[in-house]
Amino acid sequence: MSRRRATAKIVDCTIRDGGLVNNWDFSVEFVRDVYKSLSEAGVDYMEIGYKNSPKLLKADNVGPWRFLDEELLKKTIGEKTHTKLSALVDVGRVDENDIVPRSESYLDMIRVACYIKEVDKALELIEKFHALGYETTINIMAVSNATEVALSNALDLVNESNVDVVYIVDSFGSLYGTDIEYLVSKFKKHVPNKELGIHTHNNLQLAFANSITAESKGVNYLDASIYGMGRAAGNCPTELLVNYLENPKYDVRSIMGVIERRLIPLQQQVEWGYIIPYTIAGMLNEHPRVAMALRNSEDKDKYLDFYDQLTSVETQVNIPAAKTESKVNS
Amino acid sequence: MSRRRATAKIVDCTIRDGGLVNNWDFSVEFVRDVYKSLSEAGVDYMEIGYKNSPKLLKADNVGPWRFLDEELLKKTIGEKTHTKLSALVDVGRVDENDIVPRSESYLDMIRVACYIKEVDKALELIEKFHALGYETTINIMAVSNATEVALSNALDLVNESNVDVVYIVDSFGSLYGTDIEYLVSKFKKHVPNKELGIHTHNNLQLAFANSITAESKGVNYLDASIYGMGRAAGNCPTELLVNYLENPKYDVRSIMGVIERRLIPLQQQVEWGYIIPYTIAGMLNEHPRVAMALRNSEDKDKYLDFYDQLTSVETQVNIPAAKTESKVNS
Repeated sequence: MSRRRATAKIVDCTIRDGGLVNNWDFSVEFVRDVYKSLSEAGVDYMEIGYKNSPKLLKADNVGPWRFLDEELLKKTIGEKTHTKLSALVDVGRVDENDIVPRSESYLDMIRVACYIKEVDKALELIEKFHALGYETTINIMAVSNATEVALSNALDLVNESNVDVVYIVDSFGSLYGTDIEYLVSKFKKHVPNKELGIHTHNNLQLAFANSITAESKGVNYLDASIYGMGRAAGNCPTELLVNYLENPKYDVRSIMGVIERRLIPLQQQVEWGYIIPYTIAGMLNEHPRVAMALRNSEDKDKYLDFYDQLTSVETQVNIPAAKTESKVNS
Repeated sequence: MSRRRATAKIVDCTIRDGGLVNNWDFSVEFVRDVYKSLSEAGVDYMEIGYKNSPKLLKADNVGPWRFLDEELLKKTIGEKTHTKLSALVDVGRVDENDIVPRSESYLDMIRVACYIKEVDKALELIEKFHALGYETTINIMAVSNATEVALSNALDLVNESNVDVVYIVDSFGSLYGTDIEYLVSKFKKHVPNKELGIHTHNNLQLAFANSITAESKGVNYLDASIYGMGRAAGNCPTELLVNYLENPKYDVRSIMGVIERRLIPLQQQVEWGYIIPYTIAGMLNEHPRVAMALRNSEDKDKYLDFYDQLTSVETQVNIPAAKTESKVNS
C-alpha cells in the first residue's frame, strides 16, 4: 500500500471548528487536555481558535477561543511541547494590529479563510503575517461552488504570494474522491510552488476518505478534529488520520483517552456528525445553515419534508432562520 | 466524473445485517415499509433475512427474519414491485430441503456466506440453489485475514462453479481504498467470468468510500443498509449509494422517509455506527465481538483501557464474553 508517511502533517481543528458547535464554550482544562493529548499523539498542529477581533463581530455569549489572546494561550498551554499552535482569521474580522510578531507569540501559524472574491484581501493579510514570521495558509472556502475561471484566476494570484500552504476546503461536504483528485491536480497546476492542504466535512461520510485520497496525491496538510467534532456533519476524525498515517511519530493511544474524557461527555450536550439533514445539504451542495436551523427546531427529524422543501422548485424553504453566524470558515 | 450508472446494483441488507443488531426483532409493518421504500427508491435487491434452519442453530428469542419462510414473505410483501428479494444462508446452518424452487418462492437470490476453508461446501449449496433457478452469490468472509495463496486457490474453485456473483467482504471494516483496489484486481484475475460484489463495514468511516471505489473498478453488486444499520459499526448507507449512482431509476426521497419513520426511532433502542470500540477493532483488523461485549458492559466508554488491552502483548483481554453469536456473515 502506498501510504505516504514522511511528509503529511495533521492540523487538528477540534477547538476552532468544534467551537462552531458549542460557541467556543470550552474550559481551559478541556483545551489543555486536548493540547496534551495531541502532542502525545504526535499531531503536528493544533488550531486553538480564531484570532478575530471582538470589535469587528458580535462577541456576546461566545467563549474566549473565538478571540484568542496571548494571556489565554499562556495560561492554557504553559510550555509548548511537540504540537505547534495555529489560529484562523476571517477576512474583514481580524484587526491586524492585534497580531504580535511570532517571536512574542504562542502561535506558529496563522490561517486566513476567505471566499474566492476576497482572495486579494486575504493575501494582503498574509503578507503582513508572513513578515511577522508566521507560517501562513490561505483557506479558500466553498470551492465546490466556484467557477473554473474564477478559481484559476484566484490561484494564479495566490501562487505569486508568500503564503506557505493553499487549502482545498470542501465547505459543504459535497465532494467525492474523483472531485478531490481533480481539484488537487488543478491546484498543483496553478500553485506549483506551494504546499497543499485539505479541509473536509463529513456530510457524505467521505471526510476521512477524501483526506487520504488527497494525501495520496501529494497534499501534505490534513485538517482533522477529534471524534470529528465540527460544525454540522463535522470533520475528518483525527484518530483515523493518526492511525492511518503510521508515521512512527504518530500514536493514536492518547486520542482514545481524550475522546473518552472530553468528547463523549460533550456530545451529550451538543450534536455533530452523520445527521440526515446535513447529509441532504451535502447531497445538494448547499451550506448547512438551513439544516442547522432545522436541527434547532421542533421539526428536527422531519427529513422527508426537509428534503421536499430543498428539492422543490416551487416552494420557499419554510424553516426558522438559523441563529448561528453564516460566514465562518468551514 | 466517472460515475458508473448503468451496471451497478444495490443490495439493501437492512433487515438481514441490521437484524444482527436487534435479533431480527422487526415487525411485519417495519419490513413492509422498508420494502416499499426501497422499491420506490429503485433499489435492486432487498436481503430480507436469513434462510437458515431453526433446527441447526439456537432459535430462542430471535425474530422470524432469521428463519425466513414463504408464508412470512407472502404476508409481508404481498405483490412484489421493483425490488427483488434475497436471503443469506450460512454454510452448515441451512437445511437445503427448506429451499423450494424459485418459481414457487418469493426469493430471487440466495447468497451463501462462508469462510475460505468452507468454499467447497458453499459451492455445493450454490449448485443446488442454482439448479432450483435462483441467482446466487458467494460471500467469502474475512478476506483481510486470508493468505494470498488460500484466497487464490479458493477463487479458482469459485470460477469453475455456476455462482453468479463473488463478493469481497470486509468483515472487520479494516480495509482502505488501496486494499479494495488490490482485491478487486485479484478477484478479476481469478474469477474473470463472474460478476463481483462488495460488502463493507464502517469501522473506519470508509464503508461508502470503499463501495464507490470498488464500483469505479467494475464491481456491480453493492451491499448497503438504510442509515447504515448493521452489526457494530454498521454498513454503507443505502441513501448515500442511491444518491451517488445517479441512475435515473434511483431516487433517494423515499429512503429519507423510511429513515425518519423507522430507523431513527429504532436507534433510540439499539446502537450501531461510528463508536470508538468498533473503530479500534477495525484499526486492529479484528472481529468486533470483543468490542460488542464491551458495549454490553458497564465499561462501554472506557476506550483507553480497551485500546490498551487489545494492543498489549502481555495481558489477556478482560471483558465479559459477547452474548451474540460469533459466526454470522458480516
